[in-house]
Amino acid sequence: MTAQTKSATPVPDGAHPFPHDHLLGIEGMQPWEIGFLLDEAEYWVTHRQRGKQLKRLTQINAFFENSTRTLVSFEIAGKRLGADVVSMAVANSSVKKGETLLDTALTLDAMHPDVLVIRHEAAGAVQLIASKVSCPVLNAGDGQHEHPTQALLDALTIRRRKTRLEGLRIAICGDVLHSRVARSNFHLLSAMGAEVRAVAPPTLMPPAIDRLGVIPFTNMDDGLKGADVVMMLRLQRERMAGAYLPSEREYFHFYGLTEKRLAAAADDVLVMHPGPMNRGVEIATEVADDIQRSAIKEQVEMGVAVRMACLDVLTRQRRGLAWNGEGWA
Amino acid sequence: MTAQTKSATPVPDGAHPFPHDHLLGIEGMQPWEIGFLLDEAEYWVTHRQRGKQLKRLTQINAFFENSTRTLVSFEIAGKRLGADVVSMAVANSSVKKGETLLDTALTLDAMHPDVLVIRHEAAGAVQLIASKVSCPVLNAGDGQHEHPTQALLDALTIRRRKTRLEGLRIAICGDVLHSRVARSNFHLLSAMGAEVRAVAPPTLMPPAIDRLGVIPFTNMDDGLKGADVVMMLRLQRERMAGAYLPSEREYFHFYGLTEKRLAAAADDVLVMHPGPMNRGVEIATEVADDIQRSAIKEQVEMGVAVRMACLDVLTRQRRGLAWNGEGWA
Amino acid sequence: MTAQTKSATPVPDGAHPFPHDHLLGIEGMQPWEIGFLLDEAEYWVTHRQRGKQLKRLTQINAFFENSTRTLVSFEIAGKRLGADVVSMAVANSSVKKGETLLDTALTLDAMHPDVLVIRHEAAGAVQLIASKVSCPVLNAGDGQHEHPTQALLDALTIRRRKTRLEGLRIAICGDVLHSRVARSNFHLLSAMGAEVRAVAPPTLMPPAIDRLGVIPFTNMDDGLKGADVVMMLRLQRERMAGAYLPSEREYFHFYGLTEKRLAAAADDVLVMHPGPMNRGVEIATEVADDIQRSAIKEQVEMGVAVRMACLDVLTRQRRGLAWNGEGWA
Repeated sequence: MTAQTKSATPVPDGAHPFPHDHLLGIEGMQPWEIGFLLDEAEYWVTHRQRGKQLKRLTQINAFFENSTRTLVSFEIAGKRLGADVVSMAVANSSVKKGETLLDTALTLDAMHPDVLVIRHEAAGAVQLIASKVSCPVLNAGDGQHEHPTQALLDALTIRRRKTRLEGLRIAICGDVLHSRVARSNFHLLSAMGAEVRAVAPPTLMPPAIDRLGVIPFTNMDDGLKGADVVMMLRLQRERMAGAYLPSEREYFHFYGLTEKRLAAAADDVLVMHPGPMNRGVEIATEVADDIQRSAIKEQVEMGVAVRMACLDVLTRQRRGLAWNGEGWA
Repeated sequence: MTAQTKSATPVPDGAHPFPHDHLLGIEGMQPWEIGFLLDEAEYWVTHRQRGKQLKRLTQINAFFENSTRTLVSFEIAGKRLGADVVSMAVANSSVKKGETLLDTALTLDAMHPDVLVIRHEAAGAVQLIASKVSCPVLNAGDGQHEHPTQALLDALTIRRRKTRLEGLRIAICGDVLHSRVARSNFHLLSAMGAEVRAVAPPTLMPPAIDRLGVIPFTNMDDGLKGADVVMMLRLQRERMAGAYLPSEREYFHFYGLTEKRLAAAADDVLVMHPGPMNRGVEIATEVADDIQRSAIKEQVEMGVAVRMACLDVLTRQRRGLAWNGEGWA
Repeated sequence: MTAQTKSATPVPDGAHPFPHDHLLGIEGMQPWEIGFLLDEAEYWVTHRQRGKQLKRLTQINAFFENSTRTLVSFEIAGKRLGADVVSMAVANSSVKKGETLLDTALTLDAMHPDVLVIRHEAAGAVQLIASKVSCPVLNAGDGQHEHPTQALLDALTIRRRKTRLEGLRIAICGDVLHSRVARSNFHLLSAMGAEVRAVAPPTLMPPAIDRLGVIPFTNMDDGLKGADVVMMLRLQRERMAGAYLPSEREYFHFYGLTEKRLAAAADDVLVMHPGPMNRGVEIATEVADDIQRSAIKEQVEMGVAVRMACLDVLTRQRRGLAWNGEGWA
């Protein structure tokens, strides 16, 4: 392994680096489990040519909610590992014909996939499916719950740029209330010892966010002060007018990330965004295109590597590989 | 071959086990041809890892009518055999641009696929395409005509559970009039010597169904009496109100499969459904989830095996394999 | 190479047969570059079994404008060369979420494809993407600008039937104004020394078409006189009534290709159409189905071969192959 950075939280003696059947969320994961997945992903950053880890295995991507970006990332990840990848999009799904989620789960399971990648608009749906099928399930985003591979790719991006996660000041800004990206990042970054801040208008700030160990800010300038990393969240167009926000224009005025506002952050601040970006809404074009500080493109790149790592690790058991305390054999 | 069950109708001396270029329907097939395909499918039930039978061959799935379930099943089947699988969905099709079906067929043919899997909303469309192209065509459902792989997977499921088809009492219940699944099953089960019943409201019973050797029942309790297998059909939502049926509620009252109603059937009755199910419409949840009696999940599993067998058998000729009276060489 | 025909315009000493990073359009290409791509495509006409040229490489087909026919052709081409092919359709795209084209381009690039095939409804969009990514880009049609692989497959079809392009009289008929197919063909056929004619109603004739070296005709009978090849263009339904044309019926009356009208052309005239055809609008059924004269099915066949050649040639550099003056090593 030619990792550029390595986990600062090695697997303790006697512990299994990833004792889970599924990857449903970051919540509850041990720091060394997160570190282990990031170390594995490091390997795939530099090994992009087609491998054979998943050869003869069937990967089904069941996306009940559209997301070209994430779907393409998982397709490329699976194909680079040699898997037979089959994707089904919601538009054509039996769900539209009134089938229950459990029946859909059992149908997928009956086709004997070796790994299921699921995206669903309802929080908890992926966990429900996982409880009913006999193969590893990977959560590609479920409602406002979790999006674990996004948090992992964000962490990998930060670790490669900053060499560590611990002790960093990381501000997550925007529609925190509805964001599964924010939730997964809160869990991951807190577990890894970062100082995590949430910056949002009062209407878009989750109620008891401090219980997650996150420091809330409703003023953007305060929230950005001294930040090592600024992670912007996508503002869903449907929330821009009406109940949550007065207008897109006013949102940008108070919470849009501009060069001027960014001056309050650390000199070597890293700017991130899970994409797709709304330029001029949550982020100014000048910031998005600032090659020195923006890691947005790198996030996408890390996404493929992280997904390769997760697909590889989750299928090891059925490929006959077990952790023997030192390695996989 | 490690078949758990074997055909009771072996190929007669001098006969070819499958002398057809295409698989367009069950009607007209010989019992030993059906038995041969089921035997072949048995092999794939236990051999799920990627094979090489279709390596370097191109399989095009042209679905002019949406069906995620069937499409995914054919995709997995083809990929497990090593084929290059290309799927095209109706939503994007040139058909929407006014191209005739024949022009579409000729276009597909010009790309030199090695096997075409076609689903179309018009009865006879698949046969028309088959008559114009130079590769094997597999009917994945055409209008209210036939859905041969569904009947084959149903038969395989029954044969594995009951060890035979001959002599079984099989009730096919629901919207028989509009169902290609019912039609293909009538042909297959009659050919294999089962006692086949059709249970439907008078408005959903095809006129001269007895000519197919099928016994009609308009009373559900009568139709289920002593049945070894109960096959429920999906009720299309668009038929639930209006011309055919007074209401969804009344339909369930008279024709929904409940535990109570099922008591009239044989003690070891097998319950089947082609999916996706309308729970509370044609089938009660308690019956759908009755692990002892429901074979619904197994049907999906057999679907992949049956499709692998059909893809394999149909492409043998172009792979240079011929039947020599005893085997393929 | 077992080419049936070979380029009449060999690569000059010291010249590179294809010194381009991308294939964005035909305009500006040298005759020997066109001839080189056609020669390469000839090879794939007869070699249809899966090759390994693109093994371990990732091909992304990003179609921002629907086209099943072209997409399937590129998918088959890539898979026959052994590539991992990932396709994304516009309907699911982030573009719909307001992402800019450049952000989409950077996102695709960050996933490290080895070749990008792009179709877009805006002229110039593909070129813009190509300028921002680090892999070869293949234009699969951009607005009313160019559709280079269509022109190449048309040229290959003609060359195989007529043994040459030089000196042929080729009439391109119909909605010339809006057609990227026409534009790419004008450039290619003029470069190869054909006599190119444009036949269109005055409202559908581009203003200064003679500057492209094309002879304009508004009368169909005049335009077809002595033609060796008649290329019909598809009439977009949305243009049939209103600003451009009085009615579909009148269009067919004046510009539809009938047997009678075709009599003015050369005896051995070749009839072509990029598909999908509007029978009874721009072309009569009797002409479309005239096996002797219609090359419409062959065009589709040549399409796969041309796309295999383009994918192969464009990826040679990253596969470590360089032109040494005589061959690729």
